[in-house]
Amino acid sequence: MKRIAVLTSGGDAPGMNAAIRAVVRKAISEGMEVYGINRGYAGMVDGDIFPLDARSVSNTLSHGGTFLRSARYPEFAQLEGQLAGIEQLKKHGIEGVVVIGGDGSYHGAMRLTEHGFPAVGLPGTIDNDIVGTDYTIGFDTAVQTATEALDKIRDTSASHHRTFVVEVMGRNAGDIALWSGIAAGADQIIIPEEEFDINTVVANVRDGYENKGKSHHLIVLAEGVMSGEEFAAKMKEAGDTSDLRVTNLGHILRGGTPTARDRVLASWMGAHAVELLKEGRGGVAVGIHNEELVESPILGTKEEGALFSLTDDGKIKVNTPHKARLDFAALNRDLAH
Amino acid sequence: MKRIAVLTSGGDAPGMNAAIRAVVRKAISEGMEVYGINRGYAGMVDGDIFPLDARSVSNTLSHGGTFLRSARYPEFAQLEGQLAGIEQLKKHGIEGVVVIGGDGSYHGAMRLTEHGFPAVGLPGTIDNDIVGTDYTIGFDTAVQTATEALDKIRDTSASHHRTFVVEVMGRNAGDIALWSGIAAGADQIIIPEEEFDINTVVANVRDGYENKGKSHHLIVLAEGVMSGEEFAAKMKEAGDTSDLRVTNLGHILRGGTPTARDRVLASWMGAHAVELLKEGRGGVAVGIHNEELVESPILGTKEEGALFSLTDDGKIKVNTPHKARLDFAALNRDLAH
Amino acid sequence: MKRIAVLTSGGDAPGMNAAIRAVVRKAISEGMEVYGINRGYAGMVDGDIFPLDARSVSNTLSHGGTFLRSARYPEFAQLEGQLAGIEQLKKHGIEGVVVIGGDGSYHGAMRLTEHGFPAVGLPGTIDNDIVGTDYTIGFDTAVQTATEALDKIRDTSASHHRTFVVEVMGRNAGDIALWSGIAAGADQIIIPEEEFDINTVVANVRDGYENKGKSHHLIVLAEGVMSGEEFAAKMKEAGDTSDLRVTNLGHILRGGTPTARDRVLASWMGAHAVELLKEGRGGVAVGIHNEELVESPILGTKEEGALFSLTDDGKIKVNTPHKARLDFAALNRDLAH
Amino acid sequence: MKRIAVLTSGGDAPGMNAAIRAVVRKAISEGMEVYGINRGYAGMVDGDIFPLDARSVSNTLSHGGTFLRSARYPEFAQLEGQLAGIEQLKKHGIEGVVVIGGDGSYHGAMRLTEHGFPAVGLPGTIDNDIVGTDYTIGFDTAVQTATEALDKIRDTSASHHRTFVVEVMGRNAGDIALWSGIAAGADQIIIPEEEFDINTVVANVRDGYENKGKSHHLIVLAEGVMSGEEFAAKMKEAGDTSDLRVTNLGHILRGGTPTARDRVLASWMGAHAVELLKEGRGGVAVGIHNEELVESPILGTKEEGALFSLTDDGKIKVNTPHKARLDFAALNRDLAH
Repeated sequence: MKRIAVLTSGGDAPGMNAAIRAVVRKAISEGMEVYGINRGYAGMVDGDIFPLDARSVSNTLSHGGTFLRSARYPEFAQLEGQLAGIEQLKKHGIEGVVVIGGDGSYHGAMRLTEHGFPAVGLPGTIDNDIVGTDYTIGFDTAVQTATEALDKIRDTSASHHRTFVVEVMGRNAGDIALWSGIAAGADQIIIPEEEFDINTVVANVRDGYENKGKSHHLIVLAEGVMSGEEFAAKMKEAGDTSDLRVTNLGHILRGGTPTARDRVLASWMGAHAVELLKEGRGGVAVGIHNEELVESPILGTKEEGALFSLTDDGKIKVNTPHKARLDFAALNRDLAH
Repeated sequence: MKRIAVLTSGGDAPGMNAAIRAVVRKAISEGMEVYGINRGYAGMVDGDIFPLDARSVSNTLSHGGTFLRSARYPEFAQLEGQLAGIEQLKKHGIEGVVVIGGDGSYHGAMRLTEHGFPAVGLPGTIDNDIVGTDYTIGFDTAVQTATEALDKIRDTSASHHRTFVVEVMGRNAGDIALWSGIAAGADQIIIPEEEFDINTVVANVRDGYENKGKSHHLIVLAEGVMSGEEFAAKMKEAGDTSDLRVTNLGHILRGGTPTARDRVLASWMGAHAVELLKEGRGGVAVGIHNEELVESPILGTKEEGALFSLTDDGKIKVNTPHKARLDFAALNRDLAH
Repeated sequence: MKRIAVLTSGGDAPGMNAAIRAVVRKAISEGMEVYGINRGYAGMVDGDIFPLDARSVSNTLSHGGTFLRSARYPEFAQLEGQLAGIEQLKKHGIEGVVVIGGDGSYHGAMRLTEHGFPAVGLPGTIDNDIVGTDYTIGFDTAVQTATEALDKIRDTSASHHRTFVVEVMGRNAGDIALWSGIAAGADQIIIPEEEFDINTVVANVRDGYENKGKSHHLIVLAEGVMSGEEFAAKMKEAGDTSDLRVTNLGHILRGGTPTARDRVLASWMGAHAVELLKEGRGGVAVGIHNEELVESPILGTKEEGALFSLTDDGKIKVNTPHKARLDFAALNRDLAH
Repeated sequence: MKRIAVLTSGGDAPGMNAAIRAVVRKAISEGMEVYGINRGYAGMVDGDIFPLDARSVSNTLSHGGTFLRSARYPEFAQLEGQLAGIEQLKKHGIEGVVVIGGDGSYHGAMRLTEHGFPAVGLPGTIDNDIVGTDYTIGFDTAVQTATEALDKIRDTSASHHRTFVVEVMGRNAGDIALWSGIAAGADQIIIPEEEFDINTVVANVRDGYENKGKSHHLIVLAEGVMSGEEFAAKMKEAGDTSDLRVTNLGHILRGGTPTARDRVLASWMGAHAVELLKEGRGGVAVGIHNEELVESPILGTKEEGALFSLTDDGKIKVNTPHKARLDFAALNRDLAH
């Protein structure tokens, strides 16, 4: 393979630039040329494609976001979109692609591979909800950012005997809430993967103030459960009498300088994607499992270790859904005395 | 004066601990004893008062919030509350008080002084809206925290061609919005001290994308104007067609490790308050003006340089209201190209 | 077991407070009482032992260092010291001990267990050089702190076309240098686990400026190799003509707010140590391997999975020495174009 | 004036990019064109000059260092160098220049103005030692970075009963040491502007441990006094028996994301420099005094408010040398109990 391209797709995540840099530098060290594609699959179809050299990615390692920009582009699920994209790849002499993003990005990578353009997926999202990897690029940074914000909220809540409901991102996954909640010493963590009883939540708040000598109460809520405002309203309905405030950390979790760990992970994965393309392999996604890099077929059967399979009616099905660590939820209950 | 006390009142602010530490250490260096009062005037009335020594305030300098905790206590505006507080002060042999907080705290300090207990006020709030000082303790930290959050939001907005409305605290003052907006390179800053035309706001967004090659648009909105959600709704009504998101930085601005500047300011003011009490002076508030500490009478006429005066019907009036720097608003318009 | 104690020993590391907190809170949730021992084994022998409750560890999670303080105490390697310590434990009714620290701390834990006081070791050091665990408590924070410092040095070196040799801690291990070097985009990383040729180092510097268009050159040097000053002198001897500066990050790597990841790891390990003591197990050290907690016998044969064994002449031998990831060293060479 | 240029000279400082951005954006808003000059006066002489537009400075505000790079170029003190530079300016149609840097940069600005090219100086250095301004661009960031590093060192020193001598930058000025020392709660601050007695220093250390119950001792040392190693050696000679360590914060103080305050100051000054050039004014340097921008003639008599004058033998003399705040040194002594 003489020339490859790299794009970012879906929601952006800290560390995407580090992954792009690794793809570029590793490819150059392997004697390949590298092109960047702006705005994900949309830019591929539009031909928004340009050469990158080693210096193009200088000083990007520590920057949040993605300098190739990202976009959602559902049209790429259709054959027409795929063919338009491939025409552009051909035009630029590109033989393989690295796609950094989430589930949707992986499906596009699968299609490109089927059409003869090996594509490799890298898991880029703060939510940690992508199958085939223990950790996604961006998750560690989002947890760190959330923890720092929770530390600040703890300062003010402890000064005022307040109860805080802090909503954190994570789509349908509770991972950010769990990790940042443990790290910040949350009194309660509410995640979509676990049932909760609002009366118990309120009773815990009261117990903390009345029997445990707590000077404040911090509840970390994953957005997949409901909004912070809704949750607070339910608490009040259930009889909470504390000085209750709501904060939504919102989009600050998506940005920011990536942590060292995310930069290392992204660099390692980016280099590995190039190695796979060099061997002509595509249709796979890179993950980290048990501290080593692994790659899984994107499409196939569960037995083959594939991430997704097609149902009889042609829909895409996740073979082994991501699971939050419920032992961490139990751990936090033990530590929240 | 042989024994003084210190309390924090109103909303907490980063740097309050640094101010408490300075009061304690300076008093000890002057041969005085120091007591802490928990939960502001409420704790004074309850007798929640205890001795502090130099080691009590070790390692507090870098901590956000206030270890004496804070509370609003409107009952202290009544004579009954004041007398109850004074009884406690007498019981503990306390002869003077340093009050760290906002406007309301100052009024309490005035009353204590009138009753023969000299009290000195220090301006502690993130909002920078207290009269008699160029800067309040906590403002620099809040601006820094807001700027760091805006930097993160810029990462993600630039990756996605998005428009962001970011709401920041500040009560009725636009200072936090102005300073953090300039620091973060906001495209538009909306503050209560300046009129705005929603059609111009929307036109600026469009002009940025269409004519200026901007990849995103960042609007910093002071909470004193309206909520971010309301503002975004108005933008949509006025025809905004961009990918618009809203984030409210909320309570993270109140917490966090104080900046070096806030720690220096708080230390300096705290020590000066003790010097004033040592001279038997009370009923004044400390401020910084033109890089030097100043003190102003809390109550009196404008001509005397007092911060507040009483109207004929006994209400408290601000003599020279705080003003935001409108030249900074103009500056940002020039830089937002 | 009704009452346990916790101590920190050896060099301090960020996250030790989080581990102490977890021991205390978990023990209380299991119905046990907990005592703290100040200054490690020295404090044990001196009887510097005091009860801790759930509130004693409030607000410690985010603080660097160890509030129990730490000390090296070689006297505990002698039977006399051990018996003196045990007498104090008996006096306070303590039946088991959690020891947070490095190798030396583990040996003490082994001795206590042999004397009938089950003790469990937790790996606390920034250097990541303790056997029986993939990661130590404090390593992630040290890597993050080093990376942030390297980012700053990059700013100034890039502004001036300078070459920087930055020395980082790690005793005989290169882990901090490797991880932070990759994260910060170091041009060269020099670690004790790999040979280096000073002429190649100097040639790489020249090649970067002359052929690769680099505007600066960053060399991360593990302290286990030699000092930064010595390394720079060798470079000059070998003909380096660049504008060369040396910085030693020094002790800032030992302090600081622990990262979210270190807090989670420390919390998890601390709770697990209590579970082991509850089962009456001692003489083991907790580690993390493949994302799950494991425990290994401190003393025994390699086949038993023990961390250390005794040689015929009674010396302590490491069974399976810690290894740095040499694949990461190779990765960085590929990315340093 | 239709076209101006901007350069950075001397040591780099955080906020220089923010100042460049402000010059560019403000000039464009005034209808002028702007060119960047790489590597200071060296680049001017070499003709390393290129056009900048509003987008060229997007996303530079938060970056440390200077993207125009900087260099010392003593040759510009000679007429020959100046004429070569001016030829290049003429060639590019440049009519005025903004120079961001230190004393040496100002002298170059004076010469350009004398030759008919109005040049305005902005104070850019972390050391805060430039005349004509209360604060330089970069000082606030350096103080903040030093304070954060001192906070980390405090964690580890407090865990081990250690004494630390921490050397900080500042050339001949003690400002960084003073401000960061107060902010971090240093036990002693040693600056070039004040005499010190090494016996008193050592006595203070002993008194802290023996009589004041201190668990550690932090000495902040300005580099203008002597090196940390030398100072520690003197302490040992004078009988210090504590566990003494030395750290030099070194070059990390020069880099890093500028604080919000430095970004605001740099933006404000950059815009003002353009206003001055627009009025045809040159040979002046911008400063901040009493919270307002001021400009001073670079060369002239003290009575005219000029920063420098020429001695009879043609040497440059500072009219009113920079002074550190000795009241802050006294303040810290009061707070270091």
